[in-house]
Amino acid sequence: MRLLVIGGVAAGLSAASRARRIDPSLEIVVLEKGADISYGACGLPYYLEGRVRDAGQLKVYTPEYFRTERNIAVRTGARVVSISHARREVVLDRAAERVHYDKLVIATGARPRTADFEGAASPQVFTLHTLEDAERLKTYLRDKQPKHALVIGAGYIGLETADALRRNGLAVTVVEQSPDVLGRGDAELTKAVRERLERFRVVLQLNTRVSDLQGYDLAIMATGLRPNVEIAAEAGVQLGPAGAIRVDEHMETNLPGVYAAGDCAEAPHLVTGRPAYIPLGTTANKMGRVAGANAAGRRERFGGIVGTAILNVFGMGVAFSGLSAGQARREGFSPVSARITANSRAGYFDGRPMTVELVADSATRRLLGGSIWGEDGVEGRINVIATALYNRMRVEDLEQLDLAYAPPFATVWDPVVIAAQQLSKMV
Amino acid sequence: MRLLVIGGVAAGLSAASRARRIDPSLEIVVLEKGADISYGACGLPYYLEGRVRDAGQLKVYTPEYFRTERNIAVRTGARVVSISHARREVVLDRAAERVHYDKLVIATGARPRTADFEGAASPQVFTLHTLEDAERLKTYLRDKQPKHALVIGAGYIGLETADALRRNGLAVTVVEQSPDVLGRGDAELTKAVRERLERFRVVLQLNTRVSDLQGYDLAIMATGLRPNVEIAAEAGVQLGPAGAIRVDEHMETNLPGVYAAGDCAEAPHLVTGRPAYIPLGTTANKMGRVAGANAAGRRERFGGIVGTAILNVFGMGVAFSGLSAGQARREGFSPVSARITANSRAGYFDGRPMTVELVADSATRRLLGGSIWGEDGVEGRINVIATALYNRMRVEDLEQLDLAYAPPFATVWDPVVIAAQQLSKMV
Repeated sequence: MRLLVIGGVAAGLSAASRARRIDPSLEIVVLEKGADISYGACGLPYYLEGRVRDAGQLKVYTPEYFRTERNIAVRTGARVVSISHARREVVLDRAAERVHYDKLVIATGARPRTADFEGAASPQVFTLHTLEDAERLKTYLRDKQPKHALVIGAGYIGLETADALRRNGLAVTVVEQSPDVLGRGDAELTKAVRERLERFRVVLQLNTRVSDLQGYDLAIMATGLRPNVEIAAEAGVQLGPAGAIRVDEHMETNLPGVYAAGDCAEAPHLVTGRPAYIPLGTTANKMGRVAGANAAGRRERFGGIVGTAILNVFGMGVAFSGLSAGQARREGFSPVSARITANSRAGYFDGRPMTVELVADSATRRLLGGSIWGEDGVEGRINVIATALYNRMRVEDLEQLDLAYAPPFATVWDPVVIAAQQLSKMV
Repeated sequence: MRLLVIGGVAAGLSAASRARRIDPSLEIVVLEKGADISYGACGLPYYLEGRVRDAGQLKVYTPEYFRTERNIAVRTGARVVSISHARREVVLDRAAERVHYDKLVIATGARPRTADFEGAASPQVFTLHTLEDAERLKTYLRDKQPKHALVIGAGYIGLETADALRRNGLAVTVVEQSPDVLGRGDAELTKAVRERLERFRVVLQLNTRVSDLQGYDLAIMATGLRPNVEIAAEAGVQLGPAGAIRVDEHMETNLPGVYAAGDCAEAPHLVTGRPAYIPLGTTANKMGRVAGANAAGRRERFGGIVGTAILNVFGMGVAFSGLSAGQARREGFSPVSARITANSRAGYFDGRPMTVELVADSATRRLLGGSIWGEDGVEGRINVIATALYNRMRVEDLEQLDLAYAPPFATVWDPVVIAAQQLSKMV
């Protein structure tokens, strides 16, 4: 029995590793098109910034490690160009080599969307998606000493890259075609991010399309990700409405024995009840783990996502989970929201103001989402909201939560509880 | 209609304030036996330490504030010596004054348990429960310059006070009559706290009863709290098995129109399903809020506690929620536990190892509790566990949680998820 995994970063290696732990006798082969496997892609902005000094810090494991420690064969530079499910084999670009499989995990990831503007193909335009991208960009920064950077897109990658470039002394402008940052349709969150960027003299231009690169000697395209689904789709694997691979809760595609996981696949969103395409490393790992278990004969399910994310914008944590009020309205809910600002911990323990916005459905009083920003304690609070969303909590239960309190860590009324109390009066 | 509140610290003032917001026409009187109201008792160790420079920082509101801003009459130095519910009045010690009530909230708090040993009544023995206690102790430290402190009891107050005294240059010994710290019956947590104390040259003696004060010029009694229930019990208010006032989910006692909240009352424990006596400021405030709402005519319920607590021991956060394995066994569960150590965030963002122990019931796979210790990120993770316990989550759901990930804040597999994965294999 051979398990073949296409893709050797987060989802693919999680799948392979989990399958190995479940079935020591399985033959497991991972095909990775790039030169590197198992790298922490979320660390690329910090490698660019210089906080991560050596790309080696981001490489978690080597193919050699997988071979000797886990009995998993990992081939790099192995690009799959087609899948023939009838024959249970994939075809590589190199010499049209064919590799047989009994079970297949598709973890082909995603690639950056490209923007179309004058000069988009010129050498000062970069993406920051792979370790190779980061290496190229670092080389360019060192060799060409660019002074004016244009970041196209105000999503995670765009904002984190803006931070990294600014800290390297470049003048940075972020342009975003929508009216908001981070794809949330949230004006207050956008305002908070804008103020933070401006404090560090980063220019944010919303509602703006880039037409050319005039005035910039460096541009980063960070306009989102597109799932790599072409070879899967050609093989008859169904896609979902967002264009990513449709999977059931076992991460199986419509083709029996063919699983998909990670940035190429949809995930069930527990708040909307529908599949969503929100490619993130933590989700990829969780999906991969389930795909690997099931490819090895288990029958596990992936619990779904609630859309939790966090990023650092010049020392301010920005996090959200679930839906913004605007997103909730578009999903057919009747959202009501409350926003409060409260201290992260006692003032004499350097507590900082944090803003918590909660959204609930006025028809059911169910919590639909939350967003938080502040210099301290954001990650812990968004995780409470993520856990509440997973459990479909109602607002009146959220305000009852028995959260930890001592002055070094929190305030006696936790900001999340204060926000829930406020919202409870309104729904 | 007059609402009378006995006690002007956490629960009492929360009750009074909430009642006022609900009913602007209610007459509200708060009787506080001490000189101070509304102080942050949880900050007392930090006042002792010197981090809080001025006791005024701990006084949140004054009686004057309550009178002018909230139309609530607060009388300090007003000690209630009896309640006559038949007459709907309380009797004060001063001139046997009688004060009528229509609704009554009992928020009489708790007092330190006393230990019996030779010298227990001598002037170098202190408790740290009220602001006056802290003032007296600070005066003693300044005037007498004691060198060797004995802390009796290794609960929150004992450990926090040991920290505060050590940072003031005293040699500190903590003695505890049980085999464990913090009343958890948890040997690993005890070991972690012991190592931390020893690193800062604080001596911890377990299984030890104090017989005398030989060798010490300062002693702190921190052997736990006893609820102040005497006047309530004499008036016919029922007590629960732990000796605190029994309340229903509306915070009402067996006497109609008489509510109790805070450190004098029991709270329903959602993990055991039985009332518990765990006096903490955050619980007191929540209970008081519900008592005040219902005394003002609402019909709200208190959701209960899961036993969450956190403290700082020389820079190490120590937190728990729910039951330890030993506690779970005594409650009739069949506990299984898993303990892992993982980084709080990426190493290049100064991530620190944290230990997470989770306990589940092997019969139902339900999460029963968790404990966490480490130098970073403890408060956020214990709150995830507290939220999971509130929602009666099972282990296999806990490992599915969509928690926030970015290198400045977490690791791609959150320590709570890693612990849940580990435990999932065992239940």
